[in-house]
Amino acid sequence: MTDWNSLYATRMDGVIASDIRERMKLLDASQLIHLGGGLPDPDIFPYRALSDASAAIWADATLARTALQYAPSEGYAPLRAWIAARMARDGAPCTIDNIMITNGSQQGLDFIAKLLLSPGDKAMVEIPSFIGALRAFDAYQPDYMALPQDSRDWQADRLSGAKFCYVGPDFRNPTGTTMTLAEREALLDLAEETGMALVEDGCYQALRYDGEPISSLLALAVRRHGDINRVPVLHTGTFSKTVAPSLRVGWVAGPADVIRKLVLIKQASDLATSAFNQMLLLRVVEQGLDAAVALGCRTYRERRDSMLEALREAMPERVGWTRPDGGLYIWVELPEDIDASLFAQRALAEHSVSIIAGAAFFPAGTQDMPGYRNSFRLSFSMIDAQRAREGILRIGDLARQMMPSAKSRQSVAAVTTTSSA
Amino acid sequence: MTDWNSLYATRMDGVIASDIRERMKLLDASQLIHLGGGLPDPDIFPYRALSDASAAIWADATLARTALQYAPSEGYAPLRAWIAARMARDGAPCTIDNIMITNGSQQGLDFIAKLLLSPGDKAMVEIPSFIGALRAFDAYQPDYMALPQDSRDWQADRLSGAKFCYVGPDFRNPTGTTMTLAEREALLDLAEETGMALVEDGCYQALRYDGEPISSLLALAVRRHGDINRVPVLHTGTFSKTVAPSLRVGWVAGPADVIRKLVLIKQASDLATSAFNQMLLLRVVEQGLDAAVALGCRTYRERRDSMLEALREAMPERVGWTRPDGGLYIWVELPEDIDASLFAQRALAEHSVSIIAGAAFFPAGTQDMPGYRNSFRLSFSMIDAQRAREGILRIGDLARQMMPSAKSRQSVAAVTTTSSA
Repeated sequence: MTDWNSLYATRMDGVIASDIRERMKLLDASQLIHLGGGLPDPDIFPYRALSDASAAIWADATLARTALQYAPSEGYAPLRAWIAARMARDGAPCTIDNIMITNGSQQGLDFIAKLLLSPGDKAMVEIPSFIGALRAFDAYQPDYMALPQDSRDWQADRLSGAKFCYVGPDFRNPTGTTMTLAEREALLDLAEETGMALVEDGCYQALRYDGEPISSLLALAVRRHGDINRVPVLHTGTFSKTVAPSLRVGWVAGPADVIRKLVLIKQASDLATSAFNQMLLLRVVEQGLDAAVALGCRTYRERRDSMLEALREAMPERVGWTRPDGGLYIWVELPEDIDASLFAQRALAEHSVSIIAGAAFFPAGTQDMPGYRNSFRLSFSMIDAQRAREGILRIGDLARQMMPSAKSRQSVAAVTTTSSA
Repeated sequence: MTDWNSLYATRMDGVIASDIRERMKLLDASQLIHLGGGLPDPDIFPYRALSDASAAIWADATLARTALQYAPSEGYAPLRAWIAARMARDGAPCTIDNIMITNGSQQGLDFIAKLLLSPGDKAMVEIPSFIGALRAFDAYQPDYMALPQDSRDWQADRLSGAKFCYVGPDFRNPTGTTMTLAEREALLDLAEETGMALVEDGCYQALRYDGEPISSLLALAVRRHGDINRVPVLHTGTFSKTVAPSLRVGWVAGPADVIRKLVLIKQASDLATSAFNQMLLLRVVEQGLDAAVALGCRTYRERRDSMLEALREAMPERVGWTRPDGGLYIWVELPEDIDASLFAQRALAEHSVSIIAGAAFFPAGTQDMPGYRNSFRLSFSMIDAQRAREGILRIGDLARQMMPSAKSRQSVAAVTTTSSA
């Protein structure tokens, strides 16, 4: 009999299920303290606004027809216009021709990679990097290059040849760190000198808890070139972290020529994003995105502060962590002689605390890079401060246990400074 | 200055916007008679059921949280279970492990191609073929092979080497034709002899207006092999034609091993389909998919009959067309000396009737195949019988005009028989 399986053993070989997504299947296991997955907190989703928006759409026959019929591949024009106005407010003047709607920003990353990468092409990424971006890129079989952490090492002669560089300038997943304005300008210089595109993941941009907003790469590039249609930046955005993830509405902003190509890819992939969901989203953001963002910021700021406090209290010496100005994540580095995968396994098995070992955020072939073996990601987004504190205390105990030389809960928190500091 | 555009001039070069999707932008131009686009009729969408389902979800705090939080990549389990039961009822026993939810069946076609095709691989298709499938496959740069129209030519020694063969056994887009049971069995034989997979597009299967249902390739393969996990068939389904397109919910059914690989692709592409939309859909189909299908069948059967009658009345001799047993399309062949692209242009410009010239449904490099230059697709789905009749009368006039030898409206309808006849 034919071995059908051999047929399917092609492109996705070696791609493993995302640890995070697999972990989501555990969400019902209510005994666990989840410090791993970076899901937004469903307690603050705008249920009432969405319920009202649904009712309003169904009550209007014309809207209801639009909501259920195939939508244009580029997205629902009034939502694209709203996003274009918001991007302009944030420093990147553009029109609806510069905006394509996607199913969350994840789909934008997939389509950008599909447009730009052929097998063996080079893709530059920060390391560690958002796991979903790596999985999206993996499918097109690039060779990865690391964007050096220190911007003094961003020299065109050593970093040429990549099709694009993918970065998360604000509170990026998984480290929570932020690029300074000077770093952003230096990265734009590097892109211009090497001829690569910049893929800017803006998904946490609105969730800033401290300090002043820093212009996005897209905004800075528009300022340099005078026109969004001449910039080397593609910016992905989403409502998943500010409204709700499962409406699956995000966008790509960039030069109109590139957006048109991405629309063809969208058309060939799933025709269009749900018109109903885009219309719901538009009603909600028109009536109160700023309020939703403010609520998110209040909620997550408090949880971040509480988690940082618990870390200071619980962690032994020689453990360091980032202090994010926004977003949902803290990145912890254990001493180099502690294996973070083992640490995560023991945290789960012995202490019912879920964290994500850092290796998941490294592309294939980078296992010798700093942090690969001894770091992990915490998220403070999903559970209340008290429960998170309990989780941190438990893994603090575990850290001390795995580090026999450390003697007490008192610690000199060897803080890995945020890069914006 | 760097020429950023050269960066983007890679994978999608030569891929043009779908004529159909571009045409959708004209939907507001109410003077046109649209016989081109195959959109389902929004007059029969189940608005009330969806409105009730929305209200019920928002009214239940637990359901509402599930509806808005990230869903599993494989889909909402209760909907997968409902689909598995439906597939079993239709002759293909399976479990939820055999079902993955996609954004319409289009996304299933994209992901199957992404799993199976590397540049230069061979993909076999019926010619003409669904334009959306061709665009999905194009992105992975296959070489196309034609599945011969006559099943007596389905010989393994002449047709080996393809990764898969994509077919629409029931009332396929664009021809409206249906594979006989004997043809389906012969195609399964061919797949087994050549070791290729079969990709079965089941999107019109439920919309049968005449005759008895014929088992799907998936059902026949399960019967042969005794177990869905051993079959060479991947089946794509959708609720776009039976409930509403813009919920963007479809599925792939197949062996669990393959479904798992497709789930990884889904995860890397857009994480998951909207949980809210899947929950809405489940409520609607639980309460009345059969009624919705029956309404669709009544509506479209009448329009098909009316359009066939108008064709008999309006078309001059030497024009032939298919007589579909279901679906949304009729395929018309003009005499070989009439250029269908010109015909379509003149129909639009001079008679305000929109049709789709057949060439759009042929993959690149097949311009010498029969029908490429002289055929077009009609759809009877979107507008009422009287308006469609008016459109057919107008293009009948045009056909006579372009064919000076024809003398009257009387015609001997040179019917291209349906393949199930």
